[in-house]
Amino acid sequence: MPNSPYFAPRNSNADFYGRTEKLSIIAFSGDFDKLTAVFTLGMGATAVGYEVNIFFTFWGLDTIKQKRGRAFIGSNWLTKIFGFMMGGLKATPTSRFNFLGAGPKIFRYLMRKNNVATLEELVEAAKALGINLYACEMAMHVLGLKKEDFIPEVKDVLGVASFLQLSEGGQTLFI
Amino acid sequence: MPNSPYFAPRNSNADFYGRTEKLSIIAFSGDFDKLTAVFTLGMGATAVGYEVNIFFTFWGLDTIKQKRGRAFIGSNWLTKIFGFMMGGLKATPTSRFNFLGAGPKIFRYLMRKNNVATLEELVEAAKALGINLYACEMAMHVLGLKKEDFIPEVKDVLGVASFLQLSEGGQTLFI
Amino acid sequence: MPNSPYFAPRNSNADFYGRTEKLSIIAFSGDFDKLTAVFTLGMGATAVGYEVNIFFTFWGLDTIKQKRGRAFIGSNWLTKIFGFMMGGLKATPTSRFNFLGAGPKIFRYLMRKNNVATLEELVEAAKALGINLYACEMAMHVLGLKKEDFIPEVKDVLGVASFLQLSEGGQTLFI
Repeated sequence: MPNSPYFAPRNSNADFYGRTEKLSIIAFSGDFDKLTAVFTLGMGATAVGYEVNIFFTFWGLDTIKQKRGRAFIGSNWLTKIFGFMMGGLKATPTSRFNFLGAGPKIFRYLMRKNNVATLEELVEAAKALGINLYACEMAMHVLGLKKEDFIPEVKDVLGVASFLQLSEGGQTLFI
Repeated sequence: MPNSPYFAPRNSNADFYGRTEKLSIIAFSGDFDKLTAVFTLGMGATAVGYEVNIFFTFWGLDTIKQKRGRAFIGSNWLTKIFGFMMGGLKATPTSRFNFLGAGPKIFRYLMRKNNVATLEELVEAAKALGINLYACEMAMHVLGLKKEDFIPEVKDVLGVASFLQLSEGGQTLFI
Repeated sequence: MPNSPYFAPRNSNADFYGRTEKLSIIAFSGDFDKLTAVFTLGMGATAVGYEVNIFFTFWGLDTIKQKRGRAFIGSNWLTKIFGFMMGGLKATPTSRFNFLGAGPKIFRYLMRKNNVATLEELVEAAKALGINLYACEMAMHVLGLKKEDFIPEVKDVLGVASFLQLSEGGQTLFI
């Protein structure tokens, strides 16, 4: 009964019924433009008092890796190669018009020129604003990643069911 | 407290608790097949009395541009080139099997042959049915687009936070 | 008023207010990695007592086709070719790093090596666990598919509006 009024509100954003204004995002994509959307939505929601939870899974796990560039992380040669191909946050492609890496650069240029935060700045800001960052247990298992491979701001490693329960009563997006 | 029963329902679709049956879509993709999904979902929901809000952002902004074909719109050469590459509604690729533009043509053919509305018809119908179309402020800023670049049916330019608040209490999809 | 407390709960997962803990997924994508996400989310939610509904549409319809490999299914030559290009469940590409079919193989290898269920196993398990599988009426119409082309576990053919109504009061994802 996560939405019942007879339970204490779980945080200060809760309404009369104990329902929380909450945005939860399953960040599956590793594309630069989609990750920008993840953080822009998260930051916007935080600005108006929402609780924001981001669950990084599969390609999205790149975003919270310690090592930002391409690196051989992983528990065996195959996952190491996979990790290298995926790259880190600086290597994320756009979902269209990647042009061997030029796409993200154009975006970064446009964003900086227009004083809009870049993805790296958005990640920093997300951490500063207290957005909850979670890593997907199963994807870590498949890709051979450990909690130590991620930035320390990652709050917890969760299973999908736990994340869905955490997201109850709010808006949940798959990006 | 957007869901509180003590507030007047915001529209006639509201239930006993003042909650609205509502579908909100963040239309991020510029792919033909995904845009078809956006409008098909929106139209279907409208047909059964839902309030439908569509928030166009990034590649999705193509859909609501005045100029339908490829055109140089934007405030400087770089955004002009970006706008040209993105093209207008007639230039949207499918997310798979694009074949240099053949993909959407096959879809259009299949849809017309089966008396299913084409994307252009869906946009027209969406406007006629009173689906609320919004443009994303930040994406417009980054891509150098102004409200005048869009079709007049665009109801408003909104920030992401405002759109999320508008979407409270309904189903929200990121497409 | 699907969320009203004065209506009988529709299933045993319903809370005090008759609201159901429910996960609904619009499975639009035909990509191997995204389909894995669909079933992983569905299975995880089922494990903690959620009602899970999956609505297969467009590329996602591949997943529930009888014939698993590439096959000429469809009512005319054009939809037959389309069906062949799409292939069946064994032919789904990953959304990145497909390498002419190697991507899914690497995933399958990684998943099997780590004792995580493969996509085929997830589909089997989903059926066994009573996850509700639906096919999108309009997409079937456009692609020339009939109910007989799908696995018998498909519960029903639905329009988008009916699926959205079925999803009311839960978390709905577009994947």
